Amino acid sequence: MDTKMGASLDIEINDYERIDDLNFKGLKIIQNPNNFCFGMDAVLLSHFAKARSGEKVVDLGTGTGIIPILMSGRSEDTYFDAIEIEPTMAEMARRSVKLNELEDRIKIIEADLKESPNHLGTRKYQLVTTNPPYKKVGTGLVNPNHAKAIARHEILCSLDDVLKAASKLLVRGGRLSMVHRPNRLWDILLGMRDYGLEPKKIRLVYPSLDKAPNMLLLEAVLGGKPHLSWLPPLIVYDAQGDFTDELKEIYAGS
Amino acid sequence: MDTKMGASLDIEINDYERIDDLNFKGLKIIQNPNNFCFGMDAVLLSHFAKARSGEKVVDLGTGTGIIPILMSGRSEDTYFDAIEIEPTMAEMARRSVKLNELEDRIKIIEADLKESPNHLGTRKYQLVTTNPPYKKVGTGLVNPNHAKAIARHEILCSLDDVLKAASKLLVRGGRLSMVHRPNRLWDILLGMRDYGLEPKKIRLVYPSLDKAPNMLLLEAVLGGKPHLSWLPPLIVYDAQGDFTDELKEIYAGS
Repeated sequence: MDTKMGASLDIEINDYERIDDLNFKGLKIIQNPNNFCFGMDAVLLSHFAKARSGEKVVDLGTGTGIIPILMSGRSEDTYFDAIEIEPTMAEMARRSVKLNELEDRIKIIEADLKESPNHLGTRKYQLVTTNPPYKKVGTGLVNPNHAKAIARHEILCSLDDVLKAASKLLVRGGRLSMVHRPNRLWDILLGMRDYGLEPKKIRLVYPSLDKAPNMLLLEAVLGGKPHLSWLPPLIVYDAQGDFTDELKEIYAGS
Repeated sequence: MDTKMGASLDIEINDYERIDDLNFKGLKIIQNPNNFCFGMDAVLLSHFAKARSGEKVVDLGTGTGIIPILMSGRSEDTYFDAIEIEPTMAEMARRSVKLNELEDRIKIIEADLKESPNHLGTRKYQLVTTNPPYKKVGTGLVNPNHAKAIARHEILCSLDDVLKAASKLLVRGGRLSMVHRPNRLWDILLGMRDYGLEPKKIRLVYPSLDKAPNMLLLEAVLGGKPHLSWLPPLIVYDAQGDFTDELKEIYAGS
């Protein structure tokens, strides 16, 4: 163990970890490249899920803590609780929070999100964010690395678990912002109906103009009136294989 | 009444009607500009809904007959029944079929689509196409023109009626291809589930890259296994306000 860039704040960085600069408001994140590292989905969600002034937000399955850390840079007086079940991931996320001196705004809680309403209380949050595992158990190869496996497959929590927890944590009229796979939309819509979450905004993310969408950004409102708004397409790469202007803006300002 | 361009085939064209050239394989259509004329949605559906060799197709609520007429040009040995409830519209569509000398491939049937399984029989068709009214009664202004009103609002048939009829007309494994509004997707998916229609392919149509999608092309399979595939976005206009290359190709080849 050494203290690398975290030295001035007396934060321990393990040899197998690295500190990545998020190139946004000086924010940084500690990641273990052998385990799950955050992806574009987290960046897009942190841009899509807009926390309003004074709101309390909870991130379900926060992993490295990337979503509350990025979102903290986009608002001033918002407060984040972030649930992570995996002890070493939660501990690393806590060090990332300290590294960014965000301890007064982001609290990493090592817990099972299924139990989170018992820990945190019900009807407490204006916004729930989540980048949950996308794949049902039984579909696709399960990664032998545990941290990667639980981030990608619904091993420790199902879509239903996430929606159920969100519906308990949110105040009436509160929003759930999530990123998921388009091929799960059907499951998502049916699941939301079971928990009184009304889908209100959908945006599809297309890798390029000639490709099928591979991500879905969705906002639902607890107890909201039925009215589904679709947003313009979000295109990631242009015909030359470069990020589109919108993607560059999201990375620069998310 | 005169006989205009239909003269050589001895087809009567009323003064208030016009013959439009479809700019595709010499096909033409008779329309009454005071009533409902076909739109881009019909063209996109006729391109999206691919009839395979030897298949029997039924179009529910055919209006001018545009969908089977365009689809007839894209396949050789397919046969179309087309249901239309409005007597003058059905009679005009029948003249368009005659004008194109397609009487041996397209049959226009004046009937209520809700009764169509009684008229046509059940489990008879490999493909159902439909461009149904998009709007629920009680949403938006109802057009005082009856033909326009029944084409746009669910006055004479609801989404549920269309899905129910399709599920009876189709053989097991048969496809339903429809065009509708994205904000009705929720209703469409739930309705399909009620009738054993499994959504398999979805394509969203965006007027331009910076606009929300305003059409949805969807294929479902009667009794199909759950697996939803999304297609690349269909963008109508480029940044200069011209048709994109794909739209030009669809209009040229549909």
